[in-house]
Amino acid sequence: MRLASLNDGSLDGRLILVSQDGRHATPAPASTLIGALQNWTQAEPALRECSAALEAGKASTFEFDPRRCAAPLPRSPQWLDASAFLNHGRLMERAFGTPPIPDFDTVPVMYQGASDDFLGPHDDVPLPSEADGIDFEGEFGVIVDEVPMGATPAQALAAVRLVVQLNDWSLRALGQREVRTGFGFLQAKPSTAFAPIAVTPQALGPAWQAGRLHLRLDVDWNGRRVGTPSAAEMNFDFGQLIAHAARTRRLHAGTLVGSGTVSNADRAAGSACIAELRMVEKLTYGEIHTGFMKFGDRVRMQACLPGGEPGPFGMLDQRVVQAGPQQ
Amino acid sequence: MRLASLNDGSLDGRLILVSQDGRHATPAPASTLIGALQNWTQAEPALRECSAALEAGKASTFEFDPRRCAAPLPRSPQWLDASAFLNHGRLMERAFGTPPIPDFDTVPVMYQGASDDFLGPHDDVPLPSEADGIDFEGEFGVIVDEVPMGATPAQALAAVRLVVQLNDWSLRALGQREVRTGFGFLQAKPSTAFAPIAVTPQALGPAWQAGRLHLRLDVDWNGRRVGTPSAAEMNFDFGQLIAHAARTRRLHAGTLVGSGTVSNADRAAGSACIAELRMVEKLTYGEIHTGFMKFGDRVRMQACLPGGEPGPFGMLDQRVVQAGPQQ
Repeated sequence: MRLASLNDGSLDGRLILVSQDGRHATPAPASTLIGALQNWTQAEPALRECSAALEAGKASTFEFDPRRCAAPLPRSPQWLDASAFLNHGRLMERAFGTPPIPDFDTVPVMYQGASDDFLGPHDDVPLPSEADGIDFEGEFGVIVDEVPMGATPAQALAAVRLVVQLNDWSLRALGQREVRTGFGFLQAKPSTAFAPIAVTPQALGPAWQAGRLHLRLDVDWNGRRVGTPSAAEMNFDFGQLIAHAARTRRLHAGTLVGSGTVSNADRAAGSACIAELRMVEKLTYGEIHTGFMKFGDRVRMQACLPGGEPGPFGMLDQRVVQAGPQQ
Repeated sequence: MRLASLNDGSLDGRLILVSQDGRHATPAPASTLIGALQNWTQAEPALRECSAALEAGKASTFEFDPRRCAAPLPRSPQWLDASAFLNHGRLMERAFGTPPIPDFDTVPVMYQGASDDFLGPHDDVPLPSEADGIDFEGEFGVIVDEVPMGATPAQALAAVRLVVQLNDWSLRALGQREVRTGFGFLQAKPSTAFAPIAVTPQALGPAWQAGRLHLRLDVDWNGRRVGTPSAAEMNFDFGQLIAHAARTRRLHAGTLVGSGTVSNADRAAGSACIAELRMVEKLTYGEIHTGFMKFGDRVRMQACLPGGEPGPFGMLDQRVVQAGPQQ
């Protein structure tokens, strides 16, 4: 099943089902995705029936337009983002000049992000200043059902209901300071943005294996291909990440857990964020050539199958703009 | 105005108005506090009218029972907690053995907490292990209306709609590791708990001055008075804290911003958390005598006027219990 939310001006959007070819859509039998997630046992059969009717040409459809979409889940009970690609974390330690993270190979690191104001796949990204070091971070994430406190990784993985693709917008000049406070990212993390379509693990087929996505993430910055890393290299699987989040708290249905920036040790894969590109330049050439984003810059991200065909999440394509004096 | 939410099994509770003497209550003309906050311009006059009728003995009332209360706002779009009492921060740096926080005197530090699962004033606190270093943190917080990105401290302060009293439950053994990751507190911060009554700034009278609360916080651990610090010593005011939070994001109505642990440089005031008590013991006696909380322990917190009369938020009185294998 492939789900999206139309931006109808409400906080939770209007849930639709999207056809496998991404061309058609039909209203879902639940009005919002959060409502469906909160009552998944009842909601899922009706959604599956509607999805089958859509694929069989038996549903009343309209053209699917990702420009009308909000994030699949426009707000969530919690947004917990890990750093599960160790290659990214190691490069960021060098970029920030911070000491090595304790137990980084064995205990996931994870920050709590704002979960109340996600951006849709074509929304402009209003930010106050280029001097903040505007950067993108290409990632994947999962949306879970209720997870009890103390769930095991296997139990946690069984609670995954949907998989999403996202851009965890970051402000590096602010992040460097916030990492040093120990209190984590806050000003450094403005609203996160999402590709239009959330996909059930079942619909991912062989691209979903043992709690990891076996997909490539193609990242283009102002039309220049800067990264094609594979998500299969994730050093913790999503079950481990969710269980880490649920160690001392229960998770409500709709909680979103992210992978952190997709990153491969093989430098031929490029990078899904600028901070990594800059660090690799420094390590390779002794100096940094690339600056962060300017207002008007665009970044496009799309998951791809190993053969290069577009993945199931649709395109995430945004432009950075200067926020008004009060946006 | 004094507002509370009855725990009726729903995610947002059922809004009520509480009389000034804390003995009577009446159903509010808005069903939930989040609903009222999202539409405050329309909701406030009706709430005020209902509150006036309550005080005049002209409303249909029932006995106010704080044991039936959820948190005043049982879930919130964002929960952003600062560390605005520098005395607390300095002691915690020594307790964690971490390097001094950069710009600690001039730039607020703040972490993003889970905002989807707040506890009521008499709810048990289920936690997995005493070995995690179970601690309380007595604090105050504010609930704001919409705040645009880039708001000034004065604009931010004008958006304060309600003031609350809270216990930011903390797990110190986990916090020490999480501070060192730079990603901030996550496992170290289980669900936060709230005193039953949220109060408008206007109803606080002289206890609310220039964005600070002029109230004492009395903290009793298993019947032993451990702290009576004054909140007036807050080194950043709430306008500065809210503006810090809104630097690169807009805040939705209902966002909650906390002060961090109330703490005074005068050691005669004791402490509103155990970690401080332990650090003071180490500094005074060269060794730590006090352990963290055990299952079955209780902590009570109540704001008091300078003369010792109970403050307007009601009592926060909880017991720590062992979480089941899956809570």
